[in-house]
Amino acid sequence: MDIKRNIDTKDICNKLSRGNITALSKAITLVESNNSNDRELADKILTKLKPKNNSLRIGITGVPGAGKSTFIEAFGNYLTELNKKIAVLTIDPSSIVTKGSILGDKTRMSKLSINKNVFIRPTPTSNYHGGVARNTRESIFLCESAGYDIILIETVGVGQNEISVSEMVDFFLLLKISGSGDELQGIKRGIIEMSDLIAINKCDGQNIENSEKSKNEFQLALKLFPKKNSEWIPKVLTCSSINGRGLEEIWKNIESYAYLTKKNNYFFENRINQNKFWLRQIINESIQRNFYENSTVKKELQKQLKKIEKCETSVFEATQAILASQ
Amino acid sequence: MDIKRNIDTKDICNKLSRGNITALSKAITLVESNNSNDRELADKILTKLKPKNNSLRIGITGVPGAGKSTFIEAFGNYLTELNKKIAVLTIDPSSIVTKGSILGDKTRMSKLSINKNVFIRPTPTSNYHGGVARNTRESIFLCESAGYDIILIETVGVGQNEISVSEMVDFFLLLKISGSGDELQGIKRGIIEMSDLIAINKCDGQNIENSEKSKNEFQLALKLFPKKNSEWIPKVLTCSSINGRGLEEIWKNIESYAYLTKKNNYFFENRINQNKFWLRQIINESIQRNFYENSTVKKELQKQLKKIEKCETSVFEATQAILASQ
Repeated sequence: MDIKRNIDTKDICNKLSRGNITALSKAITLVESNNSNDRELADKILTKLKPKNNSLRIGITGVPGAGKSTFIEAFGNYLTELNKKIAVLTIDPSSIVTKGSILGDKTRMSKLSINKNVFIRPTPTSNYHGGVARNTRESIFLCESAGYDIILIETVGVGQNEISVSEMVDFFLLLKISGSGDELQGIKRGIIEMSDLIAINKCDGQNIENSEKSKNEFQLALKLFPKKNSEWIPKVLTCSSINGRGLEEIWKNIESYAYLTKKNNYFFENRINQNKFWLRQIINESIQRNFYENSTVKKELQKQLKKIEKCETSVFEATQAILASQ
Repeated sequence: MDIKRNIDTKDICNKLSRGNITALSKAITLVESNNSNDRELADKILTKLKPKNNSLRIGITGVPGAGKSTFIEAFGNYLTELNKKIAVLTIDPSSIVTKGSILGDKTRMSKLSINKNVFIRPTPTSNYHGGVARNTRESIFLCESAGYDIILIETVGVGQNEISVSEMVDFFLLLKISGSGDELQGIKRGIIEMSDLIAINKCDGQNIENSEKSKNEFQLALKLFPKKNSEWIPKVLTCSSINGRGLEEIWKNIESYAYLTKKNNYFFENRINQNKFWLRQIINESIQRNFYENSTVKKELQKQLKKIEKCETSVFEATQAILASQ
């Protein structure tokens, strides 16, 4: 037990393993912290917990306006009706989950946020740069340890984050809307390529015809991409978060994906490869953190940076001085 | 003196500082090596040499077919006529410098490769992934120490390398050709954004009209980009590597850039910022290398990777075991 901060990591682990939401929230807060004491506690918790491999990790991406939050609200509620426990992690700084449900306006995710089988957690904006990948993968692990079956990870489909996220999920869902006239623009080719399912959202009312047109366009576009290692053939479907049409079909597709990839072993191989990749990442982050937190290193680094500013040293000479100071 | 490999680093440094090409080549070979003894020797050499700040580092990029090699041949020869010493570093695996001049076909870079004031060095393909940034910045430093005034760094304008290169040069030149009909395609927006000069190459014979059209298109396109921190307004020029037209104007523009940015101090601030960035990169690479080369770490890493494969541990537990083994 850490007296300074009054945190009992063993107690958190026990409670978390039994699905206690307060313990889970506390653990994620420690994981997200930049404070070295907090990180130490976080490492203790992460090390004590055993991995669970019966979860399904689904990445959900789409440009702002694609209706990600309303989709997650509708899809999440649909899944809980199937007796699933859902965790929603968002790493979208403009997300309605972040700005809305959590910080006041509860209207959009209203049903989902009060559902006792749902845990919603946005990544704070301060952590948005750099630490996103680390925090998210640790949060996924914590949610799984707390017994959540399905982890939904929401991102904005515009940047580097999607690539990081694709390296930590089992299934990648791209949410699109029709009617922009230029269907293939606005989202990077690489993101379409990594998608296992493209869902044309907002397929309701006057939008139905356009959505079906978009669906056909994407189906043609997908044929241009190389075959996936998973042997899964990506699908294009339409759905409506308002009337719930298409949600069942999306879930059935995800289940088919899981069935296929568990049968051909890709699901497990992919997780092992992801774990090996994570291992390197976590080690590299740890040794860097340890190095830069060393007080003599800190002092020497400042000294050498000043010398670089005055052009009194080369970066190579400065490096050797800093490395030797450890 | 390292008896095992018969390399006297002090001797290399002395000779290199006096412009000896054999010493320079040897030093670059050590820098490019993945062997830990070689890296140690390389670090010794790099640490002993003093930085020179009177050079000009120019990044040159363009898609395959833009005529980079013929341009560098023509431009390099033009610069030596101005009594400049030129070093050419290429990190393009499809480069004619790599495949041609160095490895047999000397027709294209024929004049340049025998010019005694020119040093040409391709990055070996084996180093193309991962280590490019590290090797290149160390090679730049070695060439400068050997007295080269102008360092030309050639890349293919299609990937991540250009961003790395833009972080180590003073001036970024994008080479384009007209006649593709779709002038702004094929090169990433980010690369246009980081360019200080766009040269429409192959502006000769029947290509002149099209080249002038391309020039106007790019001039309009450049207006859409935000102002640069350097206060430099990027130019679009035409040139011909065959008849030499436009090369003088390109050089005058680069000189104007250097004059402006040295006057407003951006040139020096940029180099200091680049050095600070390099310092972190080199330190991170060093501490990672040191860590993974530790024999007990190596053993524990293999052991934990096997446990991960069998799902007997979590990445976090494995990380702690590996970190503790150091």
